[in-house]
Amino acid sequence: MNETTQSAEIISVGTELLLGEILNSNAQFLAQQLAELGIPHYYQTVVGDNVLRLQKAIAIACDRSRLLIFTGGLGPTPDDLTTETLADFFGVPLVERSEVLQDIAEKLSRRGRLMSDSLRKQALLPQGAEILPNPTGSAPGIIWQPRSGLTLLTFPGVPSEMQAMWQQTAVPYIHNQGWSQGVIHSRTLRFWGIGESTLADKAAAQIQLTNPTVAPYAGRGEVRLRVSTKAATATEALQIIAPVEQQLRDIGGLDYFGADDDTLASVVGDLLKAAQQTVSVAESCTGGGLGSLLTAVSGSSAYFWGGVISYENQVKVNLLNVNPVDLAQQGAVSDIVACQMAAGVRDRLSTTWGLSITGIAGPDGGTEAKPVGLVYIGIAGPGNQVESFQYQFGAFQGREFIRWLSACTALDLLRRKLLTHYSYSASRL
Amino acid sequence: MNETTQSAEIISVGTELLLGEILNSNAQFLAQQLAELGIPHYYQTVVGDNVLRLQKAIAIACDRSRLLIFTGGLGPTPDDLTTETLADFFGVPLVERSEVLQDIAEKLSRRGRLMSDSLRKQALLPQGAEILPNPTGSAPGIIWQPRSGLTLLTFPGVPSEMQAMWQQTAVPYIHNQGWSQGVIHSRTLRFWGIGESTLADKAAAQIQLTNPTVAPYAGRGEVRLRVSTKAATATEALQIIAPVEQQLRDIGGLDYFGADDDTLASVVGDLLKAAQQTVSVAESCTGGGLGSLLTAVSGSSAYFWGGVISYENQVKVNLLNVNPVDLAQQGAVSDIVACQMAAGVRDRLSTTWGLSITGIAGPDGGTEAKPVGLVYIGIAGPGNQVESFQYQFGAFQGREFIRWLSACTALDLLRRKLLTHYSYSASRL
Repeated sequence: MNETTQSAEIISVGTELLLGEILNSNAQFLAQQLAELGIPHYYQTVVGDNVLRLQKAIAIACDRSRLLIFTGGLGPTPDDLTTETLADFFGVPLVERSEVLQDIAEKLSRRGRLMSDSLRKQALLPQGAEILPNPTGSAPGIIWQPRSGLTLLTFPGVPSEMQAMWQQTAVPYIHNQGWSQGVIHSRTLRFWGIGESTLADKAAAQIQLTNPTVAPYAGRGEVRLRVSTKAATATEALQIIAPVEQQLRDIGGLDYFGADDDTLASVVGDLLKAAQQTVSVAESCTGGGLGSLLTAVSGSSAYFWGGVISYENQVKVNLLNVNPVDLAQQGAVSDIVACQMAAGVRDRLSTTWGLSITGIAGPDGGTEAKPVGLVYIGIAGPGNQVESFQYQFGAFQGREFIRWLSACTALDLLRRKLLTHYSYSASRL
Repeated sequence: MNETTQSAEIISVGTELLLGEILNSNAQFLAQQLAELGIPHYYQTVVGDNVLRLQKAIAIACDRSRLLIFTGGLGPTPDDLTTETLADFFGVPLVERSEVLQDIAEKLSRRGRLMSDSLRKQALLPQGAEILPNPTGSAPGIIWQPRSGLTLLTFPGVPSEMQAMWQQTAVPYIHNQGWSQGVIHSRTLRFWGIGESTLADKAAAQIQLTNPTVAPYAGRGEVRLRVSTKAATATEALQIIAPVEQQLRDIGGLDYFGADDDTLASVVGDLLKAAQQTVSVAESCTGGGLGSLLTAVSGSSAYFWGGVISYENQVKVNLLNVNPVDLAQQGAVSDIVACQMAAGVRDRLSTTWGLSITGIAGPDGGTEAKPVGLVYIGIAGPGNQVESFQYQFGAFQGREFIRWLSACTALDLLRRKLLTHYSYSASRL
C-alpha cells in the first residue's frame, strides 16, 4: 500500500468554477466532512464541463486516490457530462433506471411540470452503479466501484442537495465500509496583538511536533495555531491535544484570546458577564462596525447597551458632550476627542465601560499630519478613568481593513483591561 | 500546439484547504481575473503543505498548462514549502536576495520588530527568478520561467496581499507578454426584492441567448444576472452587452438597483448626494450594522451624519425619545417603536431621513406572537412623514443573515423612496 491508497480526492466539475463565477464551497464542505471521518484527503481538482479534460482528470485521480468524490455535472443540460464521461472512461454502458425515472416524474408532477428528454437523461446511470438518492432535486448521484479498490461517489453541484445526499447516504455507506477509522480532530487557538512569525518563533518547539501537529495561520489581524491529531475518538484526540494547547496558551500569554469559535467580541462578552459589567460604544470611522461585532454574539444584550455613531462632528458635541473648542483645535481624530467620546458615551448610557473609535479610514481625507490609517481608540472605565491609544494602521491596508482592525483593536483593549483587573496606567481626563 | 498550450492552471497550496478550514477564495479571484484577461484556464489543483505531493502536482501541471499560478506556502514558517519545492523540482539553487531582505527589515522596523531566521527565509528565491513584490506583507512572490514555454507565478495565501500583487505586477507582466488577446468581459446586474426563479422566468428570453450569455445567481438576499461576452476589447464587449443589459434593467424595474461594484449603500449614497439630503440611523437588533454598511462607502460623510445604537430599551427612551408607555405596552419590536425610533433619530440629528431597525435576530428571544426573524423597519422622511414595515425573515435563516437582511432591506426601502420622489402612502405618527 502506498501513501495514497486509502485517500479521497474531490473532483469539482463545472466551467462556472473556472470562470470564477462561484466559490467552491462544496469542496470546503466535503473537506471538513472527510477530516471529521478521519479519511485522508491529499488533492482536490477542479475541471470544466469538457469530456476530454474530465477524462484526463479521472485518469490522474484513479492513480493517486481510492475514493473519488465528484460534484457537479449531473443535471439535465447538455453541459452536464459527469455521469456519461465516467461510464465511458470505465467502458461500462449507461442503463435507464426505472425507479429514478419514476422519482423524477413524481417530483415534476408536484410542480405541475412535464417530463422532457433532457430531464429523462438523469435516469441514465452506469450499469452496476448503486443509486445515491437525491431527496430534494431531480438528479441522483451514484456509488460505484468500477474496479477493485476504487470507489466513486457523484453529487450534483447544488450545495443543499449535495449536503443532504452526503449526510443521508454517503456517510452511512462510508461507515459501513469501515473506512472511517478514527477522526482527525483539531483545536484552533486564536491570538491578537502578535505577528505570525513572532508567534511561530516562540512556538518553534511545538511546531516541530508530529503528534499533534501545530500549524500557524495569519488572517484579518489575528493569528491562529491549529493543533491537530488523528485518534480513535474525539475524546482521545483532545487528550493528545490538551497538553500542547496549554503550552501554546502559556506562550501566547495575554495575546491568546480564545479557541475554535471564540471571537474577540464573544470573549469580551464572557468577561463582562462574569464581572457583571456593561459597555457602550461611540463610533466615528467604523460607523457602527464595533457595535455590530459586539451584537453578533447572541445574548449580548446582557452587557451591551448601545452607543452613538458620531460620524458628523455636531453629533459628537450634541450626543457625546465632546468639547467643541477641543474639536476645533485638535480635530476629530485626536487623543482628546477619543477620550471625550469614550467618557461621553459611558456617562450618557450609564455603562461601566465606554469604547470610542475616531480615525481616518481613507482612501481620502488624509493629511501629512494625520495620514490615512491614523486611528485613536478611547477607553473609559469605572471611576472616571479614561485613556486613549494612537494607532497607525497604514494607508496601504485599505478602508475596510482599517475599519475592521480598529473595531477589533478596541475589543482587544477592553479584553486586556478586563483580564488585568483594571490596572490603569494613566488617567487622562 | 495542443489545446492546453496557452492555458493557465491555479495550484493552491495549503493543508488548511484540505481540512476545509478556509474557502478557496483565492482560486475564485484568480479565475475571474484570468477570464477577464482572456487567458484559458482548464484546471485547478489543491494540494497540502507536503513536498512530495506538491512535486507530483507540479509535474502534472507542467504537462498540461503553460502558466502555473501558485497561492500559499510563501510565508516564514516551516510548513511554507512552495518556493523551495519549486527550486528543487527544477534543480535550481535558492539565492538570498538583498533587496527582499532589506524590504522585510524595513517593514519590520516600522512595526518595531526584529529580523529572525524564519523571516529571513522569505528572501531566498530561485536563481533567475524575478521578484514579484509584496507591497503590504513580508513574503514576496516570483515570476519565473524555469524552462522555455513555462511560466510560474507565486503568491502568498493571504487574499489581500495576493490580490494587490496580482493587480500591481502580474497583470502588467501578462499584458507585456502579449498573452491577453481578447477579453471575456462581464457586467453583473444586481437586483433586490425579487427571487432568482421569478427573475429567471421574466428574463427567460435573454437567458437563452448565446452572445452575450446571461446567467442568474442568487446570493445573500440579492439576485444577480451576469451578462458576458468575449471580444477583442472591453469597449467592443460592452457594445455587445449594452442592449441586453438595457432589456434586463427594464425587466427588473425598481428591483434593479445597480451593476458591478454598486452596493445598496453606494446607490443610496448617490441618490442622497444628488438630492442634497442626509440620513441617520437608529439600530436595535442590527447593533450598528446599518451604519457600518453606509460608512463602508468612501465619502459617505457627505450624507450620513450618524445614529444611535439603541440596544437597551432605556437608550431608546433617552436618546431617541421613544415613548416609554408605548415601549411597555407594544414592546421594543413593534410598529410604533420602529416609527418613533426613525423619527427620533431624524429629529435628534437633524437629517432629512431617519431609518430604524428593531427585531428579533435570535436564536433566543422569540415568542409565539413575536418569533425569531420578525423585524420592523421604520423610515422617517421630510415633513414629519413616518411609516414602518413589518418583515418575517424566518428563524431558519440564522442570526447573522437576519441582521444582514434587515440592514439591506432598510437601505432598499430608502432607495425606493428616493427613486419614487417620496410618494408616501401613509403617515403613521
